[in-house]
Amino acid sequence: MPISANNTKRKSWIEVPVDSDFPIQNIPFGVFITKDDVITIGTRIGDCAIDMGALQQLNYFEGIELTDDMFMQDTLNDFISDGKKTWRLVRNRLAELFDETNPKLRDNKEHREIVIFNVKYIEMQLPVLIGDYTDFFSNKEHAVNVGKIYRDPEHLLSPNWLHIPVAYHGRSSSIIPSGIPVHRPMGQTLPNGEKTPVFGPSRLVDFELETAFITTDVNVMGENIPINEAEDYIFGMVILNDWSARDIQKWEYEPLGPFLSKNFATSISPWIITMDALEPFRAKGPKQDPAPLPYLQQKGKHNFDINLEVAIQPENSEATIVTISNVKHMYWSMSQQLTHHTSNGCRVNSGDMMGSGTVSGTTQDSFGSMLELTLGGKTPIKLSDGSERKFINDGDTVIMKGFCKNNGVRIGFGEVSTKLLPPFVRK
Amino acid sequence: MPISANNTKRKSWIEVPVDSDFPIQNIPFGVFITKDDVITIGTRIGDCAIDMGALQQLNYFEGIELTDDMFMQDTLNDFISDGKKTWRLVRNRLAELFDETNPKLRDNKEHREIVIFNVKYIEMQLPVLIGDYTDFFSNKEHAVNVGKIYRDPEHLLSPNWLHIPVAYHGRSSSIIPSGIPVHRPMGQTLPNGEKTPVFGPSRLVDFELETAFITTDVNVMGENIPINEAEDYIFGMVILNDWSARDIQKWEYEPLGPFLSKNFATSISPWIITMDALEPFRAKGPKQDPAPLPYLQQKGKHNFDINLEVAIQPENSEATIVTISNVKHMYWSMSQQLTHHTSNGCRVNSGDMMGSGTVSGTTQDSFGSMLELTLGGKTPIKLSDGSERKFINDGDTVIMKGFCKNNGVRIGFGEVSTKLLPPFVRK
Repeated sequence: MPISANNTKRKSWIEVPVDSDFPIQNIPFGVFITKDDVITIGTRIGDCAIDMGALQQLNYFEGIELTDDMFMQDTLNDFISDGKKTWRLVRNRLAELFDETNPKLRDNKEHREIVIFNVKYIEMQLPVLIGDYTDFFSNKEHAVNVGKIYRDPEHLLSPNWLHIPVAYHGRSSSIIPSGIPVHRPMGQTLPNGEKTPVFGPSRLVDFELETAFITTDVNVMGENIPINEAEDYIFGMVILNDWSARDIQKWEYEPLGPFLSKNFATSISPWIITMDALEPFRAKGPKQDPAPLPYLQQKGKHNFDINLEVAIQPENSEATIVTISNVKHMYWSMSQQLTHHTSNGCRVNSGDMMGSGTVSGTTQDSFGSMLELTLGGKTPIKLSDGSERKFINDGDTVIMKGFCKNNGVRIGFGEVSTKLLPPFVRK
Repeated sequence: MPISANNTKRKSWIEVPVDSDFPIQNIPFGVFITKDDVITIGTRIGDCAIDMGALQQLNYFEGIELTDDMFMQDTLNDFISDGKKTWRLVRNRLAELFDETNPKLRDNKEHREIVIFNVKYIEMQLPVLIGDYTDFFSNKEHAVNVGKIYRDPEHLLSPNWLHIPVAYHGRSSSIIPSGIPVHRPMGQTLPNGEKTPVFGPSRLVDFELETAFITTDVNVMGENIPINEAEDYIFGMVILNDWSARDIQKWEYEPLGPFLSKNFATSISPWIITMDALEPFRAKGPKQDPAPLPYLQQKGKHNFDINLEVAIQPENSEATIVTISNVKHMYWSMSQQLTHHTSNGCRVNSGDMMGSGTVSGTTQDSFGSMLELTLGGKTPIKLSDGSERKFINDGDTVIMKGFCKNNGVRIGFGEVSTKLLPPFVRK
């Protein structure tokens, strides 16, 4: 079924800069505060933020079944809960409304002034109330790279890795949108060669380059979702920085997994890019050998060709790109992840988020964390200002970007940009 | 400071059966649906549920600063967010109102009929919207018992265990109140001696006997909470059954910890027993050797003397008590757990829940899981109907209870009772 909002020939009457992440074919969803201090659900075309709460009040969604205040809310959870049919109707309506040939809003100056703002005057918020956050570990290159640093060389992957999309539960309360700074965490670490731990600032703060998907209401408790239905429950994707304190992680993670080394902060890009917008960028994943158990088997293209990059910007200096990767190499697909997650009947709700795990490519310059890029802190990276980094310094901003491109259309994620501050000082 | 609601001499004009968990000295908080299908916050004395929403409308909380609809809500989160001073004022007011010498409500038949129901006519709900759920592993006996089954005999405890209150993130969406049945989970397991996993119903479904505490808003992101302040942020406690599928757990847990083996269900008792009600039952914890790092050091009594028991009731048969334990043996206290949790700046909000980890005593009949009671499934337990159990059978109900007792006052938790059903069949 063609999705009209994806029409590559369509142009908007809103001017879209060359190489913008947000052409009229994107139409992401987010939540922002306007300069009048009103919180609303909205979308973005070019550098214009569009107030969907105002659009609804002005009746531009007439004919689509929506609750009266659907877009006058501070999270997308209810809209996402309404399901794929509604998401598609709304996205198609927005594409029609902003099509260059449609005079309805284009020629109504009064309405335009109520509805459209330059993005520099808005403040992006978390797009959803995230009930539960799960982080997968689904990239084989990353798993092997980490295995080379921490595991025995004969068994770089744990025995279950090729059979299970391995995952753990993350912390919802520490998920923040792009732009909010993060303090270097304090914590227990075990100095090399010592038997007694010490408490102090982490010395090895790292990023992990990930994507994440947001779900609608998936199941009732106990119910599993078959693999061929899983994609229907995925609303869209964001870029995610899974901040990690490597020295805290090394000391705490046995036997129950990462905890304080991760839950001090997780940053996400604030616009959710819908799976409908990403539909033209499907790609085949790597061959899975051994074949997964039947409940995880699928045919066709279930990966997505999304380019990713990470830059480090020291304080008062320029950003240097330190890695370029791509989501298409993920070993386990999002539908396999979601099917596995519900295979035991675990309930998944609207607004729940699932991270991919670090997205590393096959070459040294495409790895998704400083741990891998610097071989565990052995070979520092040089930045354009001449300084070197083994991990992230106080004052550095880590900037992650992602985009897809084909047939002359670029669908981007914008960015997740987060500054690392020194440890918090209690007042 | 004496808390007037704890006055051991006080009697209520509501009749309280001998050995009730809910004398007027308890005054727990919960959420229930009345027989008129109204959801409200309430408390309980004896076998009477008390509608605090109705009490508020009838002005019985006059003089206490509360929002107008504080108790006409479907969760306790806002009330808990108001902080310790408000909790104490409300609990003291309830104690005064139901004191046998107070005629105000006692002698107002019309009001009594609006406010008081027999508990058999109400349906208990989850008391809080749990934003994040953390499960600790803070009982040394349990850690050693599990080590004996899974670890090398020279290193029963992981190297960090005596330095860190080890924990992992659990799943909020699968937390249910007492009375909701649970389906036996499906999942991947590795049969003994095989190299390839299979998918099917878990054969080793187990309970874990735990308590959990519920927090108020603790900190802003980045901020840590000193150990001597931590208790101020703990609202109260419940009994928790951390359902576990041992065969799924064994295959999935390396390297990121338990996931689907735990997140199919976690059951809790529905009344939150306040820390104020538990104040008379403080106990000294075990000596911590080696001494914890300074940020986790505390003096005085920070454990609680709470008796726990678990019974298994087969379908159409009587319940058999299979273990009797006590919370006072926990190695890490709740304040140490909360201080450690925020030591890296992790945000903790009103309604967040933290499980203790399995509460095992020192003897074989006091262990907190079937895994330990049956030595990994080797020595079955005999039930009163003559049947044997290594783990939990379909149709069994697992019933956990908890209570404190001294100076003639018994403060109880009620129960968390959960039936295990066969695997879910999709319609």
